Amino acid sequence: MPKHYGNIMNLNDALALINTSVSNRNAYHLEPLDVPVKLNQNENPFDWPRSIKEEVGKFCMERPWNRYPHFIPEQLKKMLGEYVGVSGDAIIAGNGSNEMLLVLLLALAKKEEPVILCQPTFTVYRLLAEGIGSGSETVYLDDQFQFAIEAIGKASEKLPRSPLILCTPNNPTGTALSEQELRTILEKHNGFVIADQAYIEFGGFNAIPLIKDYPNLIVTRTFSKAFAGAGLRMGYMAGSEAVIREINKIKLPYNINFFSEHVARTALEHRAELAEGISLLIQERDAMQEFLATLPVTAYPSAANFIMIRTKQKQELFDALVADGILIRDVSSYPKLENCLRISIGTPEENGMLKASMRKFFNQ
Amino acid sequence: MPKHYGNIMNLNDALALINTSVSNRNAYHLEPLDVPVKLNQNENPFDWPRSIKEEVGKFCMERPWNRYPHFIPEQLKKMLGEYVGVSGDAIIAGNGSNEMLLVLLLALAKKEEPVILCQPTFTVYRLLAEGIGSGSETVYLDDQFQFAIEAIGKASEKLPRSPLILCTPNNPTGTALSEQELRTILEKHNGFVIADQAYIEFGGFNAIPLIKDYPNLIVTRTFSKAFAGAGLRMGYMAGSEAVIREINKIKLPYNINFFSEHVARTALEHRAELAEGISLLIQERDAMQEFLATLPVTAYPSAANFIMIRTKQKQELFDALVADGILIRDVSSYPKLENCLRISIGTPEENGMLKASMRKFFNQ
Repeated sequence: MPKHYGNIMNLNDALALINTSVSNRNAYHLEPLDVPVKLNQNENPFDWPRSIKEEVGKFCMERPWNRYPHFIPEQLKKMLGEYVGVSGDAIIAGNGSNEMLLVLLLALAKKEEPVILCQPTFTVYRLLAEGIGSGSETVYLDDQFQFAIEAIGKASEKLPRSPLILCTPNNPTGTALSEQELRTILEKHNGFVIADQAYIEFGGFNAIPLIKDYPNLIVTRTFSKAFAGAGLRMGYMAGSEAVIREINKIKLPYNINFFSEHVARTALEHRAELAEGISLLIQERDAMQEFLATLPVTAYPSAANFIMIRTKQKQELFDALVADGILIRDVSSYPKLENCLRISIGTPEENGMLKASMRKFFNQ
Repeated sequence: MPKHYGNIMNLNDALALINTSVSNRNAYHLEPLDVPVKLNQNENPFDWPRSIKEEVGKFCMERPWNRYPHFIPEQLKKMLGEYVGVSGDAIIAGNGSNEMLLVLLLALAKKEEPVILCQPTFTVYRLLAEGIGSGSETVYLDDQFQFAIEAIGKASEKLPRSPLILCTPNNPTGTALSEQELRTILEKHNGFVIADQAYIEFGGFNAIPLIKDYPNLIVTRTFSKAFAGAGLRMGYMAGSEAVIREINKIKLPYNINFFSEHVARTALEHRAELAEGISLLIQERDAMQEFLATLPVTAYPSAANFIMIRTKQKQELFDALVADGILIRDVSSYPKLENCLRISIGTPEENGMLKASMRKFFNQ
């Protein structure tokens, strides 16, 4: 036993030092369920062509692993800017939209100004807002899960300087804002408006062209969905150059590794090829929508690569699908989403299996 | 021109919404200087053997890029735990030590309790502490850049619940805490003590075995230095399981991509091979220390893969080295480091070039 020099803290005293905004909450968790058909994470079902992977692999073999990435990934920023129609200086890239949202809330959220969220929506927003201590103010979507523009306006009046996060198309409902709705919100709200457009390549109004009109608009995007890169964890944000310059000060230096930086550039170079999957997924989504209309469930219109349904037989349907090797997402614990399930659009074959399994379940 | 629905915010009003803890500061920036010999970032000069890179590449070709990484990288956590001597549940992995430090400050720092830093030290701590709004309290190292244990104790009395960050071995001075010093601090301080041990494989007392005695100790480590993986941006933290379970709640879901997860596992599998570079670097550092003692500069003892020197001809020496194609780091703007430069240890050939250039400069 070594000599002691004072008091040794006990575990409970150490745990009591952790911010209650963190310790009081449940960990965000997804239970991995091993089934052959994964329609539960809004992933793109098409992997990258081997030839494009090999191009990335070749770069990685040559690139020294012992050297830091670029301090600023200028070339990637320029390419992202060209892709979405802004300058490279209007872009920040990071490890998924998640990192971009954390950076934004660190720069914009204040303890006394809760983040305005349109619920039900992507869970991570609330976790982040609570985690950094500002918490969130809820505006509910309407009963058809459309954005409630008047209610959002009232929240803007109550919390005029709060960051307002709009997920459009919205996860998990699939609903999206129109240009007019988005302009109305941007001209009413006196704080920043963060439009998370992770699913924009599948539908909905693309907000990025509005950045030139509205300095309080910031748009986050990702490679996880349309670009079939969920494993890559690459996301980015676009905003006015002067705003992005400030936000960039709180981004961690060297946040993305050389692999991420290069793989995103490669994705953009091959975007025509990777985009072939997108139009097929849109077709499949629309066909799935028609199919679901023939079943005794409520299927909500979707601008994304997933469809939300509501059925009183929620648990039975979920279990029947798992029994057939198909995993979808139970979203019934989200606000307002009692009895709701979310189905990601898979390959035509996977969608066929899902349809067969659902037909069997509903005896149709 | 579209119809308008209210007021359009002007840019200055938008910029005024950004937290002043972010907007008031200068961006952290490194000017890239293109020279052949880079001894400025404490990188390991030895790239990974091609065969190990290819092993990672093979995995990446087979792994679907369109699928999310593991929700919890259990296998990596287990391997990291085995490497450092704790359980996998005592580990969190992330994008460099930087992400781990951000996560720790989000969980532990409070606005009214500034983070205690022993200056001069790694700049990112202060940037993070200021960025999240808690700010920092400075304790200075002594005149030989040793940790001033009494002064740290006084800061502990003044701010008993503040997180205290100790970089040991310390960047950029190279000085390290002994076991007794670390125990003294841990038994005096009633807040969390974060030991950043990015350079621990090169020297100094390894703090991880103390975790079992002190629940207020958390250690961060990295693959950027000894593991020659600066381009990979992989870091991790170890602490008591119960503490790590809480801290984990504020870590972003899916923070690391499949490449990072796999490459870290591969590094651990091949650690004997990768470690060959470490002992050579230690030899080279000690030889460099002896060489520097023959020059009219003050060279400080170092437990890391770099050496700090002080010379009144700081700028002239820096420029002469650049003229010979060698870049070192000017650290003279750090607190207490007037006229100081930091030299990373390179390959024997690079170190030979540095020595020749310095001999020439000092006419020796």
